[in-house]
Amino acid sequence: MRRTIISTMMMPACLFLLVITQAHAQTSPLPSWNDGKAKQSVIDFVKRVTTKGGKEFVPVAERIAVFDNDGTLWAEQPMYFQLAFAFDRVKALAPQHPEWQDKESFASLIKGDVKGVLAGGEKALVEIIMATHAGTTTEEFDNIVRDWLASAKHPKTGRPYNEMIYQPMVELLRYLRANGFKTYIVSGGGVEFMRPWVEKAYGIPPEQVVGSTIKTKFEMRDGKPVILRLAEIDFIDDKEGKPVAINKFIGRRPIFAFGNSDGDHEMLLWTAAGRGPRFMGIVHHTDVEREWAYDRKSSIGRLDKALDEATAKRWTVVDMKKDWKRVFAFDK
Amino acid sequence: MRRTIISTMMMPACLFLLVITQAHAQTSPLPSWNDGKAKQSVIDFVKRVTTKGGKEFVPVAERIAVFDNDGTLWAEQPMYFQLAFAFDRVKALAPQHPEWQDKESFASLIKGDVKGVLAGGEKALVEIIMATHAGTTTEEFDNIVRDWLASAKHPKTGRPYNEMIYQPMVELLRYLRANGFKTYIVSGGGVEFMRPWVEKAYGIPPEQVVGSTIKTKFEMRDGKPVILRLAEIDFIDDKEGKPVAINKFIGRRPIFAFGNSDGDHEMLLWTAAGRGPRFMGIVHHTDVEREWAYDRKSSIGRLDKALDEATAKRWTVVDMKKDWKRVFAFDK
Repeated sequence: MRRTIISTMMMPACLFLLVITQAHAQTSPLPSWNDGKAKQSVIDFVKRVTTKGGKEFVPVAERIAVFDNDGTLWAEQPMYFQLAFAFDRVKALAPQHPEWQDKESFASLIKGDVKGVLAGGEKALVEIIMATHAGTTTEEFDNIVRDWLASAKHPKTGRPYNEMIYQPMVELLRYLRANGFKTYIVSGGGVEFMRPWVEKAYGIPPEQVVGSTIKTKFEMRDGKPVILRLAEIDFIDDKEGKPVAINKFIGRRPIFAFGNSDGDHEMLLWTAAGRGPRFMGIVHHTDVEREWAYDRKSSIGRLDKALDEATAKRWTVVDMKKDWKRVFAFDK
Repeated sequence: MRRTIISTMMMPACLFLLVITQAHAQTSPLPSWNDGKAKQSVIDFVKRVTTKGGKEFVPVAERIAVFDNDGTLWAEQPMYFQLAFAFDRVKALAPQHPEWQDKESFASLIKGDVKGVLAGGEKALVEIIMATHAGTTTEEFDNIVRDWLASAKHPKTGRPYNEMIYQPMVELLRYLRANGFKTYIVSGGGVEFMRPWVEKAYGIPPEQVVGSTIKTKFEMRDGKPVILRLAEIDFIDDKEGKPVAINKFIGRRPIFAFGNSDGDHEMLLWTAAGRGPRFMGIVHHTDVEREWAYDRKSSIGRLDKALDEATAKRWTVVDMKKDWKRVFAFDK
């Protein structure tokens, strides 16, 4: 008798769990993706590697997925957002640096002449990056990035930069994690520029962010340990740097990789060359109305060789205009 | 009626889960630890940070625990095991390198004269490390390490090196993970020397291994991408390097850190200086019978300043002889 009472009391909880599980399985994943080849290729791949007893089953521990950030998870036009941060920072710091008035690229920036800065080429940009990204502790820099995101607005949409993230990709990240994947960012952007906001934006924790780094130094200050950011490049996580960093930071070869430019080519090749099932995807910016349209000739996010490779090897190429129902969460 | 049948059928599974959960909670954690201050300090800390609604509760995402490896998770006498690997590798490679006969430290090694090698100081050791750790692809090196572990034996115990791991620390790692901690290795040892075996030994996956690195290079070989290991130091993950690497790889400050030597001092200071509850622990090698006894004057795993700091700040100091019921799993 007692046994029956217990079982009757517990039944609703058990059934409830069953119902939840079924409801979850029945909700269509990727609601912001239009039906089509790209969406289907993702769903098919996930099914193949997660079907227990299937020929292509991949254990949870090996379900590593890597994503480029600029142009893949968030927008990168009219210029990389980290560059916008650096430029804003030059203006904010200018009063403390009268000597910048005599430096051409800094002086151009302060006057608001972005073209003049870009004319200075890579050398000028590296100088600006170093002047704006170094010289603080890691904690101070974290606060600087948070403050900037809270106030800066994208010149075209007027939205905070961390709202310029692609809703379909956010759903993809979530879908992969729901299927046991560990999702990583592997970006040419600075690690410490991304960590303050990517967890909230994408659900990717700081320890799963791989990116470019400047050198840092441990130091005791008034009996308190700090880590100082130095004006010296440590590692550029782009092109051949991406597989190198994946190997160094993750130590496993991804089975799933997504990029949008030639900077992701080597990461995609490295992913493709592993044993067993692989997914390689590219976001192709084809949507001049809702976002931007650019590829082979763009100075930002150039997609040329990797597009040829993707076509030849039948990787998934997302046609943003055709494949995405929405681009940003703030789109209607 | 049907409802009753379902509930009766499902009850055993539900009850079974309850029983399991309770049994798990009732099993005493850390069975290889003697009761005492050290064991109690760990259990108290874990209770404080995991008690929901408690003043010191720490969300799961922030429960980062870092462990040194040599002398903290496995033994390091009579010399760092990675050095034993390098020395064995010189002997194995000698037939392909006749030129080594004219290099003093290499020639000493080939003759079995380890003291002669050590007399060459750091310069000789770096040369040997580079000659034995570089010049292969990452996949080849992974196999070399696995093969060595499968055949090499520790000179004192005759056991494979990956059995020279501390059973109480394996239990501690497991206990922390069962309480929502993410466990990391942060070691002066080479990342790619550790990754092939630490997952099986400690339950720590490759992506949670931080260590010293040599530079690597991405290259296409016969149309296949490989990563080559170069004979150039990238980063030494020791002393001030440890907090720097923690910041770079993990991007969160640990709340729990364990080391055994002055090489871990800065990592412990960095952990201690965070806000909220912190645990800092040191393995003190006091067991000349079951393991080794060494501290302030040892050239390997010197524990001097960090021991003073630990005493002054009341960090947990594990007295191996007193606090551990067993040292190795193969101990009776």
